[in-house]
Amino acid sequence: MSAQDDPTPAVECGLDSGLLSPVRAGAPAEAATSDEAWLQALLDAEAGLVRAQARLGVVPEKAAAAITRTAQAGRLDLVRLARRSRGAANPVVALVEELTAVVALTDPDSAEYVHRGSTSQDIMDSAAMLVAHRTTGLILADLDRVAAALARLAEDHRDTAMPGRTLALHAVPVTFGLKAAGWLQAVLDAGEQLRALRAQLPVQLGGAAGTLAGYLEYARLAESGYVAESGYVAESGYVAESGYVAGYGDRLIAAFAAELGLAEPVLPWHTARAPIARIGSTLAEVTGALGKFAVDVQTLSRTEIAEVAEPAAAGRGVSSAMPHKRNPALATLIRSAALQVPAHAMVLAQAMLAEDERPAGVWHAEWQPMRECLRLAGGAAHTAVELAEGLSVRPGRMQDNLGMTGSLLITERLAAVLAPVVGKATAKSLMSRAAAETTRTGRPLSAVLLDLPELNGHFDAAELAELLDPGRYTGAAGELVDRALAHYRETRRPL
Amino acid sequence: MSAQDDPTPAVECGLDSGLLSPVRAGAPAEAATSDEAWLQALLDAEAGLVRAQARLGVVPEKAAAAITRTAQAGRLDLVRLARRSRGAANPVVALVEELTAVVALTDPDSAEYVHRGSTSQDIMDSAAMLVAHRTTGLILADLDRVAAALARLAEDHRDTAMPGRTLALHAVPVTFGLKAAGWLQAVLDAGEQLRALRAQLPVQLGGAAGTLAGYLEYARLAESGYVAESGYVAESGYVAESGYVAGYGDRLIAAFAAELGLAEPVLPWHTARAPIARIGSTLAEVTGALGKFAVDVQTLSRTEIAEVAEPAAAGRGVSSAMPHKRNPALATLIRSAALQVPAHAMVLAQAMLAEDERPAGVWHAEWQPMRECLRLAGGAAHTAVELAEGLSVRPGRMQDNLGMTGSLLITERLAAVLAPVVGKATAKSLMSRAAAETTRTGRPLSAVLLDLPELNGHFDAAELAELLDPGRYTGAAGELVDRALAHYRETRRPL
Amino acid sequence: MSAQDDPTPAVECGLDSGLLSPVRAGAPAEAATSDEAWLQALLDAEAGLVRAQARLGVVPEKAAAAITRTAQAGRLDLVRLARRSRGAANPVVALVEELTAVVALTDPDSAEYVHRGSTSQDIMDSAAMLVAHRTTGLILADLDRVAAALARLAEDHRDTAMPGRTLALHAVPVTFGLKAAGWLQAVLDAGEQLRALRAQLPVQLGGAAGTLAGYLEYARLAESGYVAESGYVAESGYVAESGYVAGYGDRLIAAFAAELGLAEPVLPWHTARAPIARIGSTLAEVTGALGKFAVDVQTLSRTEIAEVAEPAAAGRGVSSAMPHKRNPALATLIRSAALQVPAHAMVLAQAMLAEDERPAGVWHAEWQPMRECLRLAGGAAHTAVELAEGLSVRPGRMQDNLGMTGSLLITERLAAVLAPVVGKATAKSLMSRAAAETTRTGRPLSAVLLDLPELNGHFDAAELAELLDPGRYTGAAGELVDRALAHYRETRRPL
Amino acid sequence: MSAQDDPTPAVECGLDSGLLSPVRAGAPAEAATSDEAWLQALLDAEAGLVRAQARLGVVPEKAAAAITRTAQAGRLDLVRLARRSRGAANPVVALVEELTAVVALTDPDSAEYVHRGSTSQDIMDSAAMLVAHRTTGLILADLDRVAAALARLAEDHRDTAMPGRTLALHAVPVTFGLKAAGWLQAVLDAGEQLRALRAQLPVQLGGAAGTLAGYLEYARLAESGYVAESGYVAESGYVAESGYVAGYGDRLIAAFAAELGLAEPVLPWHTARAPIARIGSTLAEVTGALGKFAVDVQTLSRTEIAEVAEPAAAGRGVSSAMPHKRNPALATLIRSAALQVPAHAMVLAQAMLAEDERPAGVWHAEWQPMRECLRLAGGAAHTAVELAEGLSVRPGRMQDNLGMTGSLLITERLAAVLAPVVGKATAKSLMSRAAAETTRTGRPLSAVLLDLPELNGHFDAAELAELLDPGRYTGAAGELVDRALAHYRETRRPL
Repeated sequence: MSAQDDPTPAVECGLDSGLLSPVRAGAPAEAATSDEAWLQALLDAEAGLVRAQARLGVVPEKAAAAITRTAQAGRLDLVRLARRSRGAANPVVALVEELTAVVALTDPDSAEYVHRGSTSQDIMDSAAMLVAHRTTGLILADLDRVAAALARLAEDHRDTAMPGRTLALHAVPVTFGLKAAGWLQAVLDAGEQLRALRAQLPVQLGGAAGTLAGYLEYARLAESGYVAESGYVAESGYVAESGYVAGYGDRLIAAFAAELGLAEPVLPWHTARAPIARIGSTLAEVTGALGKFAVDVQTLSRTEIAEVAEPAAAGRGVSSAMPHKRNPALATLIRSAALQVPAHAMVLAQAMLAEDERPAGVWHAEWQPMRECLRLAGGAAHTAVELAEGLSVRPGRMQDNLGMTGSLLITERLAAVLAPVVGKATAKSLMSRAAAETTRTGRPLSAVLLDLPELNGHFDAAELAELLDPGRYTGAAGELVDRALAHYRETRRPL
Repeated sequence: MSAQDDPTPAVECGLDSGLLSPVRAGAPAEAATSDEAWLQALLDAEAGLVRAQARLGVVPEKAAAAITRTAQAGRLDLVRLARRSRGAANPVVALVEELTAVVALTDPDSAEYVHRGSTSQDIMDSAAMLVAHRTTGLILADLDRVAAALARLAEDHRDTAMPGRTLALHAVPVTFGLKAAGWLQAVLDAGEQLRALRAQLPVQLGGAAGTLAGYLEYARLAESGYVAESGYVAESGYVAESGYVAGYGDRLIAAFAAELGLAEPVLPWHTARAPIARIGSTLAEVTGALGKFAVDVQTLSRTEIAEVAEPAAAGRGVSSAMPHKRNPALATLIRSAALQVPAHAMVLAQAMLAEDERPAGVWHAEWQPMRECLRLAGGAAHTAVELAEGLSVRPGRMQDNLGMTGSLLITERLAAVLAPVVGKATAKSLMSRAAAETTRTGRPLSAVLLDLPELNGHFDAAELAELLDPGRYTGAAGELVDRALAHYRETRRPL
Repeated sequence: MSAQDDPTPAVECGLDSGLLSPVRAGAPAEAATSDEAWLQALLDAEAGLVRAQARLGVVPEKAAAAITRTAQAGRLDLVRLARRSRGAANPVVALVEELTAVVALTDPDSAEYVHRGSTSQDIMDSAAMLVAHRTTGLILADLDRVAAALARLAEDHRDTAMPGRTLALHAVPVTFGLKAAGWLQAVLDAGEQLRALRAQLPVQLGGAAGTLAGYLEYARLAESGYVAESGYVAESGYVAESGYVAGYGDRLIAAFAAELGLAEPVLPWHTARAPIARIGSTLAEVTGALGKFAVDVQTLSRTEIAEVAEPAAAGRGVSSAMPHKRNPALATLIRSAALQVPAHAMVLAQAMLAEDERPAGVWHAEWQPMRECLRLAGGAAHTAVELAEGLSVRPGRMQDNLGMTGSLLITERLAAVLAPVVGKATAKSLMSRAAAETTRTGRPLSAVLLDLPELNGHFDAAELAELLDPGRYTGAAGELVDRALAHYRETRRPL
Repeated sequence: MSAQDDPTPAVECGLDSGLLSPVRAGAPAEAATSDEAWLQALLDAEAGLVRAQARLGVVPEKAAAAITRTAQAGRLDLVRLARRSRGAANPVVALVEELTAVVALTDPDSAEYVHRGSTSQDIMDSAAMLVAHRTTGLILADLDRVAAALARLAEDHRDTAMPGRTLALHAVPVTFGLKAAGWLQAVLDAGEQLRALRAQLPVQLGGAAGTLAGYLEYARLAESGYVAESGYVAESGYVAESGYVAGYGDRLIAAFAAELGLAEPVLPWHTARAPIARIGSTLAEVTGALGKFAVDVQTLSRTEIAEVAEPAAAGRGVSSAMPHKRNPALATLIRSAALQVPAHAMVLAQAMLAEDERPAGVWHAEWQPMRECLRLAGGAAHTAVELAEGLSVRPGRMQDNLGMTGSLLITERLAAVLAPVVGKATAKSLMSRAAAETTRTGRPLSAVLLDLPELNGHFDAAELAELLDPGRYTGAAGELVDRALAHYRETRRPL
């Protein structure tokens, strides 16, 4: 059984229902990262560990089955567990006691095999990886839908000209297709990183200080045919060898990884926290890509610009004060997530400074930020599906806006055309002067240029009209869209 | 009725029970910042607003009373509200609808007065300030207990010598009293900042874009004796004046602040977010001060050092693997909080870049980090009470550790004593040489010094023994402890 | 001599000339925080310490004068010092050696008194406070100019109506005066915090581990009339008392603080780092306030909005590609600073977790972020002077933009006016319907409303025109401006 | 000529000499990221662009050669450039003017071809990638040396037992070899990420708003055989096609990438900033891995632990106050870097929210943090070489420390051995009781156990001695070291 197939639990009440984090309220990633989901993952890790030991013959199959059957979040009292977690500074010590007790209710012999040879961090880290694996699967599915919708927008608007804007001002024309292709490419890149990350999420297995000694001790006892009544030492002097159960560590790591559907690490990583830090940085890239999309939607939604609009839906974008408004609420939600995730990711990066064989507080500071990364990225991706699939594009407004400065956003072109005639510097300063006159007087740039003595007779009015047509100065925008779409089609693949 | 007297709600189940954040699991600050507590604060803000309008005569007292009576978190469905909050990107729009509906069940006329003239942010920000006010009260109470316990430690151990450590190595002797005084002083400073902050938490009141126009419009209607049947315009031309209800804005802000027990701002602060940013930075100072205490406890608890130990308690510091361990779990919890709060505080500082009259996403990114600051600081303070009140101090170990390097941590003194004899530089290099010999050979420093030809006859053995006594080289430590305790006694005052 | 009067050094070349940080290139804060300025501050701290000891009679006045005279940054090789600072992980050890050597060139006796009884951190922290004191003085002067310019804008445009914008969309009218008053108030608040911080920047004095033992040892030697030839121990048994030079510690801290023009701390703060953390959080508030101003200028500068423009100046806002552009370069620079400072401030907040009597790396991580906070805030404030003093305001464009949605931004008012007639909920939904029709058809809102059967005859056209005039729906904006200006005039005071 | 072969410039003076950042003072990465190095990279980008255009025949080879020859940092005034960069908020506008002027001194015709069709961001971003490429090469070389040294430590100490420490306390035995293998593995992982990143650093090429329009315009002019005298329009109607120079954009990107030795992006990435964000997160992983090594060295260096010592070297680890100290200065420097880099990386992650076709301030906030990431990581790696190659390991102290708790750190094993006898829970509680007695009374654990009635006769003394030998309870530590070394040997490869 691969753990990632487990259904995520349904939850219906709580201290943290998303009231302060609407970007993920009700999103799949919210349930997949809830306290109940973590509890289930902790139990899955405990059960997977016993099954792995059973695979290797050091635990009875019957015990593994009993523990797996019993390891259900619903069997334990979550709030009590959380409170008790203060005692050990992590929830596993109490969890082991409570799980053991529940198993013992029906099967006391099997209860002996819970958490055998193990340590809190093996369970907690493996559970974290399970939660990450499950949640990133949901995020990737949403990113795929976002990408598909953005690809459609890029294709549909390959040649829809609009003003390019730099430092808040009209610059030169671009196309909406190119803009959408840029969003698409960023989402694809982030998705690719996330997919690679997900495939490498490692199981944790090291025992109390990363030597696997506890696991090996139990294995040795099992191997030596140890029986309680017959006294402790077998004749063969089983403690002579320091690597007494050669290769058992390797095999146990492999079996545990297989049980949980996670990757095998080279070494236990109790204090080599790159796997956690990368979850943060990769999800920050995801929300960064989505956030870029969102801030652009917000700008293009501005009343004065109005080149796009968010999808209309009942109750969407409503203001408590102003009846006329349809706020860009989806973009707002996405941006709110993108503003938070990098800070959480940073805490995870800092947690790499983990002293000793287990740090006192640094590890413990990872859990909540990691959850927030998953949850906010999941909420942002889910919200972005709705935004990308429903975005209204208004080519008419783009055309109007292109025209509003009277050709000023084509000055770069004119400067280029004139450079061979009068020199690059003179051409630029001529155009600056002409642009300033257009701005000051409102006369069309073409008229100003036709009157410039320095250009006397160089252009005629028809030529100028052609040169100044914004729709004819979009450069390689179309080809770049094609390039991005080709890349999309090549790399697209199922989850 | 002052809002800070409201009881914080009891909660018993949840998506977020503290499983991943044991530092605050079950702490008072957890309940005071729960979704239910926020919901209650939102309702308190709505009710306070109606009461404020009633005070000024523009809303019937009866409506204010009915709304206040109905505004109970238990009357609304929290999870549904959270889900609906996605529509407007904040929970207030849905809250207003649901509160209005509940009020209307029994009193349709009063329902008309819910959220009159208001805007989501007035309610949300004022509620956030209520939550902050309530929670910081709890935190201050815990900080006062921490301070009292640390003051006792400083007093009791005013002259208990121990090794001072710099860059991980023994430096010169200090006293445990001075160390405790340093913890105390940091906690007092942070507490003073927090107390000042709490006294200035401002109510928010501005209406849709900060002009109070909606509130004034309703006031004007009320003032002009507007009656539905009689047509709209009073003869007097009520719209002639732009400040048509002179001074009403001022009075409404004052009344609302009084109702909620919060401070009056100079201006609406929808996009002037220093009040929020300061909550973050002040709580980061709180957890910084507590975190310093915690990391010192961890170091001093190390097996090899063992100069302090955490309080023993059932289930405290238990390891899931190792029967012999009593982990410094309280310090670990505190440190875990202190590692997270600065990142949340930073998100709040960044949220000062709030564009326009209400930003699209920047505001929305504040809520969860602000809650985490309050909750983690609250958990850390609550945990620190237990740690400070129960800390075991082991003067014997301190004495042993002082002796372990054979007087090396007095070399600074010897260099000073010799400086007038042989010059500062020569004195320091002589002592370096002697220290190296002691380290290499294990011979006591006094013996090495007595043999140094450069010092021939300068010291006799008895003099040297006196000079090298670590307990006699604690400088002004005692006086500094007195200084800190005097400061503590002067500034101590009730919440 | 008070240290804050020292001129900041001129520098002309360098590895870090501001090429990557144009916001502060050439700004006063750049020079005041340069490596040379830090070096001078380190030397000022060393000299101030000797003078303080001379004040108390334990060092000859002549030595203090000689050291003060010699302690000039230009006398030392900065790059060599920086390289040598790797040895001790801080620059002070090498600095002491090099300063001693330079003093000894002309006055070997005085050289004996350099750094007597001291420790690296006393010098480094005190120098950091000197740099902070000097630089925050420059920043406050610039903030005062910014405030004055913003106050003028608020006054001049007290009643200039413009669209209020929330979540990127037109909301209700505001005034430009209110907007400027909001910027002003934020700058004033931040300035007030900074002024208070500056007055409390503490000197650092603790000796090797915070007990002042080294200083006391030298004082004791001086007091006991120690003479080299006569042997070490005076008859009176000077080591009998642990506080052997009663009150000397207090007096030395006071004298050192007076020499450097800094505040006296309650205790040495080697590992109680709130003073550093507060520099970060206060400067983050400064750049937050300035950054809010900047992002608003950027939005209002957008080609489609064009309600303000940055001051024109030679070479300002030039694009390398587009002749027509005048980029909002000043706002861009300010925003670039505001985006960075909170992260530096956070590193400083995190550095409160300083273990032992001096942490190994945590302290060392403070210096560069603290400099960046000062430098970026200084650059932002300096840039904001130019922006605030030169900002062009375009009331005509504001008027045009107010009109562009055909009265939609007055729907809040109409809903209020209709609420008593048809009920609040019906009023809001009527207005939503009317607004949607206006948006869809382009018919003026007044026409749509006059046709609504539900309102039949309620308004006449003249009444509606008056109600829908945006300039008459600015609420208490004017009074709020007056309130902010009154506050400004009350609190304004010289640096 | 491939740009990464360029020598990095030597610099000798400066505002920022590393005085406040000794971790990188004088390190190769400092020079490689200096303002002069950035200036050179900017010039390399300008020159590479002209050569790329020359490759495609649209610029004369002679001009490309002339510009390349002139594009030397030493030819320009760095400080003046930095000051002038305030005008455009970036240094490229001034750079283009000054470079053009310098080229024109000797070759006015060639000067026309500087920055043709280009935009500031193409140059600035490409230069940033050049600086990153050069500096990460230096970092990788140092990481390779660190890895080799750590591999030797792991091999040499494969079976050197020492106490494992968790939550600050002795846990179970580990080996120093396993500890070193953990450091090694983390460094390898980070190095692998950095190597992959370096291979993908993309050139930037998009023109004013990412459409390449300016470049295409010049190409079209060249293609159409445009000659100044003959008037503007060729008969063939060259403007008829929107993709008028089919495929030219693709070819220009490829040529530019080849000239600079950088990768080709799918699209221009002016506002798709993952390449920058990844530099930050990857370097944070590098300093995280090195920082873990550093904090462990610090702990193991503590006076009471003393299991390792930093390499002795003249002037290394010196204290300004205490003659006897040899501070762990190298580890301190590394940790100081590791504490800062994640914050810079976060600023870079946040900069992904880049609005429009070029953001106003967000882009500008990247430069300094990116430099700091490179510089601090470079300094940390360089320092870590010295630390790893020179680290002293003290197996004797490890043995002593293993013995100091009287076998307590073997309780896990005993609990395992007893579990089959008395049940897991009873075994653990028996051991807790025995451990507590040992701690309280100082009696050896073996004696306590032999006396326990519950275990009567189960062990004999010899068996117990064997079981309690810490050197025999290191689990799979040796095999894990072998596993890590095998991985190292497989993946090791030249830069």
